[in-house]
Amino acid sequence: MSGKIKAGKLYVMGVGPGASDLITVRAARILSELDVIYTPTGKKGIQSLAHSIVEEYLSPMTQVCTYHFLMKGERTAKEAVWNEVAQALKEEVASGRKVGFITLGDPMLFSTWVFLLERMTSLGQITSLGQVAAEQMKNPPWLEIVPGITSFSAIAAAGVMPLAMENQTLAVISCMAPETVLEQALLNHDCIVLMKVYSRFALIHELLRRHNLLEHALMMADATLPTEQCWRDLAALSPDVSPNAADREQALSYFSTILINKNWQLSR
Amino acid sequence: MSGKIKAGKLYVMGVGPGASDLITVRAARILSELDVIYTPTGKKGIQSLAHSIVEEYLSPMTQVCTYHFLMKGERTAKEAVWNEVAQALKEEVASGRKVGFITLGDPMLFSTWVFLLERMTSLGQITSLGQVAAEQMKNPPWLEIVPGITSFSAIAAAGVMPLAMENQTLAVISCMAPETVLEQALLNHDCIVLMKVYSRFALIHELLRRHNLLEHALMMADATLPTEQCWRDLAALSPDVSPNAADREQALSYFSTILINKNWQLSR
Repeated sequence: MSGKIKAGKLYVMGVGPGASDLITVRAARILSELDVIYTPTGKKGIQSLAHSIVEEYLSPMTQVCTYHFLMKGERTAKEAVWNEVAQALKEEVASGRKVGFITLGDPMLFSTWVFLLERMTSLGQITSLGQVAAEQMKNPPWLEIVPGITSFSAIAAAGVMPLAMENQTLAVISCMAPETVLEQALLNHDCIVLMKVYSRFALIHELLRRHNLLEHALMMADATLPTEQCWRDLAALSPDVSPNAADREQALSYFSTILINKNWQLSR
Repeated sequence: MSGKIKAGKLYVMGVGPGASDLITVRAARILSELDVIYTPTGKKGIQSLAHSIVEEYLSPMTQVCTYHFLMKGERTAKEAVWNEVAQALKEEVASGRKVGFITLGDPMLFSTWVFLLERMTSLGQITSLGQVAAEQMKNPPWLEIVPGITSFSAIAAAGVMPLAMENQTLAVISCMAPETVLEQALLNHDCIVLMKVYSRFALIHELLRRHNLLEHALMMADATLPTEQCWRDLAALSPDVSPNAADREQALSYFSTILINKNWQLSR
């Protein structure tokens, strides 16, 4: 009998904010059937959060490949890693394997995965304007993207703080955006999600104070994890020593996020 | 032996965009353990989408209670239903039952659930300004909210169209918002999600044309369902007959959504 050539496929899965049971039923099933999974390495040799979320669903037969995306430094150094991982994923698919790639939260929202997607589509090219001309990608047979729970959905649920409803508007912004962009979003929208607060806390606190939004804001770090922390009284936090001088660096981690809802007041 | 009083609890679960396996592992587990589930009724006596998503996970022992939220009509009529369902949920919890309440997508984003939440917190009061003074709600013992996959995450994944990354900004808006709000969002953000397109398609099409955004936009209806439809060439759609005159009303259902990413061009 002639062997049938197995078609390879890449499954890109959002694994949600942190708790293992906040991945989808679909992702849990796919994870148990993979030939190989690509997972980021964590800091200082410890397992990455994304890997720890999925570990219980993996088959012992699945090969684990780790890579290290650079979060800081020169763009060219980052791009070299994206090129390398994208090439590795393409080769895995070409060899007929069932390949998994995991990202925290949702793969299409503030995720490094999109840099790989650009590199894996033959027509994807970053122009000098940062624009991407991507090939029409309807149902590419070699790719399935599984959406994930976003950090802000998890924070809204854990903090019992609703986001937009009816005709209200929501803006989702990284705190690394310019101050004018942040301020305009605070002025123009009913609800605002401010991601990656950490090193910008003093600036954000001042903007919220200036626009009387402190009592409509909630900050959370490590949502859905055992280390989850929630601050409901930002007005009481002095930006210089906040939220807790000793634990500041750890508390305001990469995963700290502020939710603001102008129509929802946190009484104390 | 004296009987121990069982503490009731309400589990509010986002059941995602439509596919049954896009609920979370946590929601699937909770659904199998409920005493009673509250589920919306569908149109014309058919099962609601939310109910059909969860049906396979329910225990045969679970009681099913249906209710009908009004989507149109007077505010007072809608409020009467919210009052009634909120009261019923409170009574179920008070009687010690494990109660489920399901919503499409995520419970904290454009969900009717929030009107019930306002009514279930003793201090929740809607003022004449529409502002809500809610009691501090950290970890209320009688309530657990389980986040869900949003429709826009599912559409971005199914359409292979990324949303914001790095310092880009995302706005999420209902098309029922005033035209000026819609236009400002289109001007001020890198990525925009326009929800509930249906009856406003002609207006939206004109705004996208005016701002040269048609080639950066994708429209999807019924994402992740067998009836999923995707339009990648909005420029070719005449707003008066689009997307398909015969099927227009059905195609541009309540669940049709447009994603726009100014840095991602859909080539054809």
